[in-house]
Amino acid sequence: MSLDRRNAFYAQSGGVTAVINATACGVIETARKHPARIGTVYAGRNGILGALREDLIDTGAESDEDIARLRTTPGGAFGSCRYKLKSLDEADGEREYRRLIDVFRAHDIGYFFYNGGGDSQDTAHKVSLLGERLGYPVVCIGIPKTVDNDLAMTDTCPGFGSVAKYVGVSVREAALDVASMCDTSTKVFILEVMGRHAGWIAASGGLAKRHRDDAPHIIVFPEVPFDEADFLARAKRTVERVGYCVVVASEGARYPDGRFLADTGGTDAFGHAQLGGVAPVLAQLVRGRLGYKFHWALADYLQRAARHIASATDVEQAYAVGRHAVELALAGRNAVMATIVRTSDEPYRWEMGDAPLERVANVERKMPKAYISRDGFGITKAARRYLEPLVAGEDYPPFVGGLPDYASLANRPVPKRLEPST
Amino acid sequence: MSLDRRNAFYAQSGGVTAVINATACGVIETARKHPARIGTVYAGRNGILGALREDLIDTGAESDEDIARLRTTPGGAFGSCRYKLKSLDEADGEREYRRLIDVFRAHDIGYFFYNGGGDSQDTAHKVSLLGERLGYPVVCIGIPKTVDNDLAMTDTCPGFGSVAKYVGVSVREAALDVASMCDTSTKVFILEVMGRHAGWIAASGGLAKRHRDDAPHIIVFPEVPFDEADFLARAKRTVERVGYCVVVASEGARYPDGRFLADTGGTDAFGHAQLGGVAPVLAQLVRGRLGYKFHWALADYLQRAARHIASATDVEQAYAVGRHAVELALAGRNAVMATIVRTSDEPYRWEMGDAPLERVANVERKMPKAYISRDGFGITKAARRYLEPLVAGEDYPPFVGGLPDYASLANRPVPKRLEPST
Repeated sequence: MSLDRRNAFYAQSGGVTAVINATACGVIETARKHPARIGTVYAGRNGILGALREDLIDTGAESDEDIARLRTTPGGAFGSCRYKLKSLDEADGEREYRRLIDVFRAHDIGYFFYNGGGDSQDTAHKVSLLGERLGYPVVCIGIPKTVDNDLAMTDTCPGFGSVAKYVGVSVREAALDVASMCDTSTKVFILEVMGRHAGWIAASGGLAKRHRDDAPHIIVFPEVPFDEADFLARAKRTVERVGYCVVVASEGARYPDGRFLADTGGTDAFGHAQLGGVAPVLAQLVRGRLGYKFHWALADYLQRAARHIASATDVEQAYAVGRHAVELALAGRNAVMATIVRTSDEPYRWEMGDAPLERVANVERKMPKAYISRDGFGITKAARRYLEPLVAGEDYPPFVGGLPDYASLANRPVPKRLEPST
Repeated sequence: MSLDRRNAFYAQSGGVTAVINATACGVIETARKHPARIGTVYAGRNGILGALREDLIDTGAESDEDIARLRTTPGGAFGSCRYKLKSLDEADGEREYRRLIDVFRAHDIGYFFYNGGGDSQDTAHKVSLLGERLGYPVVCIGIPKTVDNDLAMTDTCPGFGSVAKYVGVSVREAALDVASMCDTSTKVFILEVMGRHAGWIAASGGLAKRHRDDAPHIIVFPEVPFDEADFLARAKRTVERVGYCVVVASEGARYPDGRFLADTGGTDAFGHAQLGGVAPVLAQLVRGRLGYKFHWALADYLQRAARHIASATDVEQAYAVGRHAVELALAGRNAVMATIVRTSDEPYRWEMGDAPLERVANVERKMPKAYISRDGFGITKAARRYLEPLVAGEDYPPFVGGLPDYASLANRPVPKRLEPST
């Protein structure tokens, strides 16, 4: 084991985004610039599970050209997972962390870059504590990623800006369609978007509005208890005044008693609980109470995979947090997360920063109340000031034959050195 | 009434598209180049209803710059409608046609450009017959438009290529997301797309596939009676071999007895029939019989409004049919539709043509059997050869502040000269 030159481990965690591979690109390209300090970057196949299973990917086998193409490729190039390590306090809680350290030791891994949300920052923090305790110190650097935009200590989370742009674009476009046809066809259109706990994504739909009567006319936030009568009155007023009504609804919208709107209690032909989502519930309400023709769309994964309409700001920041994570490690920092620091709204300026993992771990950043208009159905100027720079700029991927030409890596496995974990 | 210089009437009909305004742009810009022959282009507010109501829009009030911006703006700039004129054979069937002629006469309209699908071509045809009979000859030129791609006598229909591109892009992107997470999360992803009668749009999802195991793994066509057992077996085999399965499902998918899959017979919490659509039905099937975790998306209007990812070929052809329609009128042609004629697959070459309205009206072009693979769940090389050129090229709209900057016209009304129709 060389003190000067150690390998690195990089893993993607949780739901992937349009730009998480740009972060991977930032990590790997920056590591390659420091061959005297960083040997090979190993990626975990399917995230942290790759480490637990000793299923490592040798990114050193990829050409510089292929690594560069990660910047324009959505999804998780090495695979990600939904898997949370146990708490260290739980019985048997240390076992998985010990396994991580064993794998790191077997492959001379001195740097752990963990790219994910709050849970992942917590894991990175614990690995740094335990490595120390077990006499195998690992430099642990967190890298933010989540379309939910709910990480503490960073102005925004890479992945969010591109979803925000997708939602803003989609609302503006669908609204033009609805407006064209409303005289004889659909009066109410509902777009359901992600965000089970926070309305950041729903709020970004509000960017489509430039003038008073522009769409969206109603945003349904998880933060605001759903007032059915108020919603219906507003939809009716809007249709009567504007001719149509466009609604952006967060999947996390709830009734005042805390129940999700998506939990309809209905059943389908198979007798299964209807999994419908929020949009069909609102649509039925509109039809049942107001008699309006409606349409609805459920963007689902399309919104977080839409690299073709990624925000240039988001892509740049996603790359920058990857690069900065490596720079932090090389500068001797440990147990910190790379952060984005906003230094000016207009003109928008930002720079890289860092925050202790223990202050990021398991903290959920809510959307400020001041971002939701008093009536509960729109966004404020403050929200707009925050959101607008995050969707700014286009960063189109290369196209071949009319479709985006996304990278597909070889993902060559690193030979195993350990017995399988029990 | 001058014999040499007459006004023109242009109307958009039926569901709008990402590029129907490019056609309007082609009509108006070309008309403006011939001021000695064409006076003002009046647009029908909300399509043909604008003519029946004498609710005309003076496009002459718009600047050249604003008209040029129509090329990059989705939706219908003057409004469209779902409204089919009665048959001339029906009792009172002539009344509406007579009203059209009255309005045309009152505004010295000598050219009728009707931009729509099969019904619209039928209407244009009847107007030409009746105008002749009533002693007010009007030059009637049809202009093709429909995302369904089901018009006869033209190689493709403007609007389709852009939906096809949207669907191809979305499938490729969402598949990367699903692939990244499938080890611990979603195994089956379903994208529901438009196309109640024909599988053209669903087929275009097949363009995302480059290699054997690429998405989409299953396409559910309206043309192929849905074989539940076969579908489930294929989904299972795909998940076992590839790790996940991506399905593109047409809203028009049917059981062998002709029932739509979307007609579930289930009810929601309000006791209303569940309007679900095809995707949730397939999703329940996958969960119920195979136990896989699933996600699904419903693109709805997003797919046909997605000007931000329009096909450059489609935009060019949409403009060209508008321009050619005016050229046909000026060349003394009547009762014809501008068509797109493919002269070569590779390299793709096309030119403008025309076809008699009577041969286009009410004829539905089905997708050839040879475009669906023998197993019924994919597309053939022939389909690919047909589809690929239609999605080729990107034609991005201008962006301001991170969102597309779409035109919004003043739509100044033309003073009425008639009593309201009874």
